[in-house]
Amino acid sequence: MENLQSGYLFPEISMREFEHTQKYPDAELIRLGVGDTSQPIPDIITSAMAEQAQNLSTIEGYKGYGAEQGNTELRVAIAETFYKNTGVKGNEIFVSDGAQCDISRLQMLLGSNVTVAVQDPSFPAFIDSSVILGRAGKFQKETSKYGNVVYMNCSPQNDFFPDLQTTPRADIIFFCSPNNPTGYAASWHQLKQLVEFAKSNGSIIVYDSSYASYISDPTPTSIYEIPGAREVAIEVSSFSKFAGFTGVRLGWTVVPEELLYSNGFPVIKDYDRIVCTCFNGASNIAQAGGLACLSRQGYKAITSVVDYYMENTKIIYEALTSVGLKVYGGKNAPYIWVHFPGMSSWDVFNKILEKTHVVTIPGSGFGPAGEHYIRVSAFGHRDCILEASMRLKTMFS
Amino acid sequence: MENLQSGYLFPEISMREFEHTQKYPDAELIRLGVGDTSQPIPDIITSAMAEQAQNLSTIEGYKGYGAEQGNTELRVAIAETFYKNTGVKGNEIFVSDGAQCDISRLQMLLGSNVTVAVQDPSFPAFIDSSVILGRAGKFQKETSKYGNVVYMNCSPQNDFFPDLQTTPRADIIFFCSPNNPTGYAASWHQLKQLVEFAKSNGSIIVYDSSYASYISDPTPTSIYEIPGAREVAIEVSSFSKFAGFTGVRLGWTVVPEELLYSNGFPVIKDYDRIVCTCFNGASNIAQAGGLACLSRQGYKAITSVVDYYMENTKIIYEALTSVGLKVYGGKNAPYIWVHFPGMSSWDVFNKILEKTHVVTIPGSGFGPAGEHYIRVSAFGHRDCILEASMRLKTMFS
Repeated sequence: MENLQSGYLFPEISMREFEHTQKYPDAELIRLGVGDTSQPIPDIITSAMAEQAQNLSTIEGYKGYGAEQGNTELRVAIAETFYKNTGVKGNEIFVSDGAQCDISRLQMLLGSNVTVAVQDPSFPAFIDSSVILGRAGKFQKETSKYGNVVYMNCSPQNDFFPDLQTTPRADIIFFCSPNNPTGYAASWHQLKQLVEFAKSNGSIIVYDSSYASYISDPTPTSIYEIPGAREVAIEVSSFSKFAGFTGVRLGWTVVPEELLYSNGFPVIKDYDRIVCTCFNGASNIAQAGGLACLSRQGYKAITSVVDYYMENTKIIYEALTSVGLKVYGGKNAPYIWVHFPGMSSWDVFNKILEKTHVVTIPGSGFGPAGEHYIRVSAFGHRDCILEASMRLKTMFS
Repeated sequence: MENLQSGYLFPEISMREFEHTQKYPDAELIRLGVGDTSQPIPDIITSAMAEQAQNLSTIEGYKGYGAEQGNTELRVAIAETFYKNTGVKGNEIFVSDGAQCDISRLQMLLGSNVTVAVQDPSFPAFIDSSVILGRAGKFQKETSKYGNVVYMNCSPQNDFFPDLQTTPRADIIFFCSPNNPTGYAASWHQLKQLVEFAKSNGSIIVYDSSYASYISDPTPTSIYEIPGAREVAIEVSSFSKFAGFTGVRLGWTVVPEELLYSNGFPVIKDYDRIVCTCFNGASNIAQAGGLACLSRQGYKAITSVVDYYMENTKIIYEALTSVGLKVYGGKNAPYIWVHFPGMSSWDVFNKILEKTHVVTIPGSGFGPAGEHYIRVSAFGHRDCILEASMRLKTMFS
């Protein structure tokens, strides 16, 4: 753990927010930093959770331990809702308390003696938990990279998809699409390349599709849309951003039966053992909420919240574009990725905070290729989004 | 993971239960195996959870990510309820989704290159997660022990407390009191020895007090009642058995500020980093329930459920004693530990199941010193407990 370079990014940002409010107690701070949902959960879903909670006080309704892997009904509903025509079955779905937690359980599964590749930039839990498990070499100040880790550069120059011809082999490839922070969703052809690359190298892809519900382009929402993916990929996903469950905590991981270790042993059996030994199932109340999300009415209600956030995204995107900034993302995820060539991410972050009281996230927090960028989250209330867009427009005009 | 000898104990038992119901579809199965709570959660607590869930559908009541360490109010309430006069403060409490999950996070914190000691018998997650992290040597069939693990024998011969004079040093000592499965709670003097042993060896104690609310003897309910424990011990605990939250999922871990690595660095800082990177906080609905448990009325309501289970325990204890069996435990935990000298645990388990349709747990599942024992859980409905007691009495008279 000594090898970790700094505190985890998101609490670090919350700390900066807090310090700023201490410095400017009267300023109206707008938080477009941490990607935290802001809109209420549709009543049909909260009612299902309230009912489940209340049932626990009755003899007939009381439930103790559930299956560690999740309620069967929910597992089947996830398979049917998100994995139609991909061959994913309910028994391959492991319901959890969220994607970040699942990534750690996968890290335990995969052990310390593996090499990893990550998109650069990407969600920092991938690399930080790899460092904690002792897989990474020392941090190199000159490159801002850990040793023994493959950084797959994703930038406008390569259409935010790594050049796999020059990418060294790694045992595990963490791949997040739509990507957090760039908002970029890989195309079918790109993912096909990725699957073939993994197959030819004997690598396992850990595919994070937590933002898949925000995809508007005709591009895959799951890695399992790619032929052969069931033999090389684990998929991690979540109700957090899809249904505003960031505080309720619910997610899932898919481990296909065809995914085997090189000795032919099914990975799903080991993951099942990890889930039974290191986890005890997601809260039964959260699971009742998850099931309600996947009902016809629940799904419809959630879709309108997703649309709301994407409308927010459009507002910020247009504001920043209108003042001539180089803006990426914003089409398939509620994140805007803004380029400030030649400027340090943390400097830009600080300047924006000082001048506009708007919190963003410095891109370098997501990896060295995030330097010169900031990420702007559109998960806010509409009035905050409008106000922040105006302030940013004024600052940059 | 290949080194693991079998599936995790509790799902294994559930599988046996299932097979038994297939074989005898008309038999009235009574489950005294897995320690799963059966009594409804008092309404004052479920109402608090239902209200919290319902609030999430309103603009004012909606909450996204909470602090990874838990809500401040709950952390303070846990410190005040369970750690009065021990010096434990709210900021040293990390709220979680349960003790089993926390044990895994602690395992990640402690890493692969440490040696471990476990009570024999004990809760199997300690040793299984140690094996998964690659700390244990090969399993030795003759002794039923993993290599490189210190097994601290706890049996009637040593008053269920290990002989520390002959116990080899280990970096980490897992210690569960009241012990699962034996039901034995260590005395103040025994725990004082344990703390001194850890201090003189530079070991960290991971103390599991999940059953502390069942203690009826005048013996410590927390390791921090022992002077000096803050410098050597982490405590893991849970709302599962205390408040029937086995399915709701809520627990906590205490990491005192005085606990330092040999280089002087505070362990609490690293644990905080683990919690932020590998976990995202317990469900806010479960946390609202936890807070309600610790209100005056909530606590009172829960205490009567605890009393109910202890009355169950007494019923089974007396039934088994009356037919001349050697019975231990049952005073400080809702578990009865029954000795069958010369007989294999699995044989006894199978015989009881075949003859009475009562599910227990073979003691050998908790470690080699559990051989010749079975554990009987008293977490059932009263009528099941009475019926099972009668069947067992008939079988053994």
